[in-house]
Amino acid sequence: MNMKALIGNIRPVRTELYKIAQQRLDNLTKPPGSLGRLEEFARRLVAIYNTEMPEIPKKVVFTFAGDHGVAEEGVSAFPQAVTAQMVFNFIKGGAGINVLARHAGADVVVIDIGVKYNFDDLKGLVARKVVYGTKNIALGPAMTHDEAVRCIEVGRVLAQEYADMGYRLFGTGDMGIANTTPSSAIAAVITGKSVSDVTGKGTGIDEIALSNKIRVITKAISVNRPDPLDGLDVLAKIGGAEIGGIAGLCLGAAEKGIPVVIDGFISTAGALVAYSLNPDVADYLFAAHNSVEKGHQAMLAHMKLQPILNLDLRLGEGTGAALAMTIIDAGLKIYREMATFSEAGISDQNK
Amino acid sequence: MNMKALIGNIRPVRTELYKIAQQRLDNLTKPPGSLGRLEEFARRLVAIYNTEMPEIPKKVVFTFAGDHGVAEEGVSAFPQAVTAQMVFNFIKGGAGINVLARHAGADVVVIDIGVKYNFDDLKGLVARKVVYGTKNIALGPAMTHDEAVRCIEVGRVLAQEYADMGYRLFGTGDMGIANTTPSSAIAAVITGKSVSDVTGKGTGIDEIALSNKIRVITKAISVNRPDPLDGLDVLAKIGGAEIGGIAGLCLGAAEKGIPVVIDGFISTAGALVAYSLNPDVADYLFAAHNSVEKGHQAMLAHMKLQPILNLDLRLGEGTGAALAMTIIDAGLKIYREMATFSEAGISDQNK
Repeated sequence: MNMKALIGNIRPVRTELYKIAQQRLDNLTKPPGSLGRLEEFARRLVAIYNTEMPEIPKKVVFTFAGDHGVAEEGVSAFPQAVTAQMVFNFIKGGAGINVLARHAGADVVVIDIGVKYNFDDLKGLVARKVVYGTKNIALGPAMTHDEAVRCIEVGRVLAQEYADMGYRLFGTGDMGIANTTPSSAIAAVITGKSVSDVTGKGTGIDEIALSNKIRVITKAISVNRPDPLDGLDVLAKIGGAEIGGIAGLCLGAAEKGIPVVIDGFISTAGALVAYSLNPDVADYLFAAHNSVEKGHQAMLAHMKLQPILNLDLRLGEGTGAALAMTIIDAGLKIYREMATFSEAGISDQNK
Repeated sequence: MNMKALIGNIRPVRTELYKIAQQRLDNLTKPPGSLGRLEEFARRLVAIYNTEMPEIPKKVVFTFAGDHGVAEEGVSAFPQAVTAQMVFNFIKGGAGINVLARHAGADVVVIDIGVKYNFDDLKGLVARKVVYGTKNIALGPAMTHDEAVRCIEVGRVLAQEYADMGYRLFGTGDMGIANTTPSSAIAAVITGKSVSDVTGKGTGIDEIALSNKIRVITKAISVNRPDPLDGLDVLAKIGGAEIGGIAGLCLGAAEKGIPVVIDGFISTAGALVAYSLNPDVADYLFAAHNSVEKGHQAMLAHMKLQPILNLDLRLGEGTGAALAMTIIDAGLKIYREMATFSEAGISDQNK
């Protein structure tokens, strides 16, 4: 497959639609600009959907699960078996993402793209396994170039399938013990920051384990020498299957003209891979929240994205994305449902 | 009426309940603390409701409307008539607060506590008028001591009424052309900051009008000499009717053991008056968002409250409170609905 076919055909949004949307916003019964970023979200949705009165009938959060060979380096507070255990928890509806997606009125789609566990034909799980866990990036590449392409394809096809089913707002999520390690590696390589500037404590390791994690990531980069300008090379060498799935979802959504709410640190690493393949994808991305995880802001700044929420979240799964969807929804409702000055018969200081 | 009867009997929350709530949160299928402030909101709700498994069957935002004699000093971008026009808009359901309260699943209660307009018996409006607009604070007190007491009583009685009807989460909101002026005056007097440090552009005045606004507020404080340690004196001399209603609502809610989500700048001035009368009220307050309006942070810091959202909002009406309710709700749902490690059969690194 050539790169063109892999990254799809993304249309940059028509910025003149921002102005058209703002005209309506300024006619609503409120001082101009007084709903701040809610107005920004409405403007962006108008431009992304390429229609003056968009609506969001259905929402979905995609939670991609994968395992990481680098877990054997002791970079996580949890054992690797937890990835598969959490997949069962997602399917049963007991995890954070299930609760917050219900709260947001979004469906949850759980994808096995790289878990080191055989789920057989577990009902409710989308089986698209590309790898049976990645290989240890401290020793060599996470996966082959071909596997990385297939991970991106999984995400891209899902975006197409769900767009065709009428879903109009996507969220991304991840599950994968040790996956802050490849995410920090990706952040360092693509943003050019030092490893220690973009490496944090993940789900809760101590200072000694953090030093080890920084050492492991530094080693992974020097062993693999990924090309910072080639997102696919970065993904294959120091990435992960769920990160590739998220990258593909972002690309596929942008191609279909659907906005994507990217969750926290791992999802942003996925979005960064997509951005590295095609920067036009950023027009379609909303950054859900400002993760506690160090390095998140550097990645968001690289893509010029400003997070919506700042609630000290660091769970992943898509929890921040689901929560941010409720705020983006609110922006669209303001745009669609508020009365204009003339409808309400109110004196407008602008007129 | 003596002060004791006015401010009610507020029970400080039992802080040992924070620990009980955190124990449950730490048994849920996520790394400890990984849902950040959502966990904080759940802990606080457990302590406020004084029960280990709270629920919120009904929510309501109270939008208090009042006019301000100081509008004649040219401190606002909008004409005074807009206060009454917006009340009609609230009743018809076309304003920002109507849209966002629907989004949050909250009812909206609109109270005429001091509008300079005769609504007769407008259906849907709660008629509790104390003043027909306040007097110009640049020339003398906004209202009498007795009127200030009655404003607080209006809020307190509403809190009792809605608590008795089964509402379990309150939001505050305001409508009143020129009401950032008394709010900045209150902020300056109670926090001890300079007038220019707590005075902003309200709904959108220019630099020249801002200088005038600072001059007017400085004059109001020197003409009236409110006692910074006496919230009631501050309210009567340089406050406003809707600000008093909000203060009373906070006090009444705390007395009934009901959390209150305070909106932006004006609502926080109301909460600050309540805090000045009884600091225990802060145990029951959630700060919805970080307003664009200068001086908001000084008031929140005075009460040791940390805002939930930061979306550059500056509309008032209770819009930020409604939006923040959706996040507080999410915190409680996490607490109530997530599976525990043992329920999900997941390895817990803490055990």
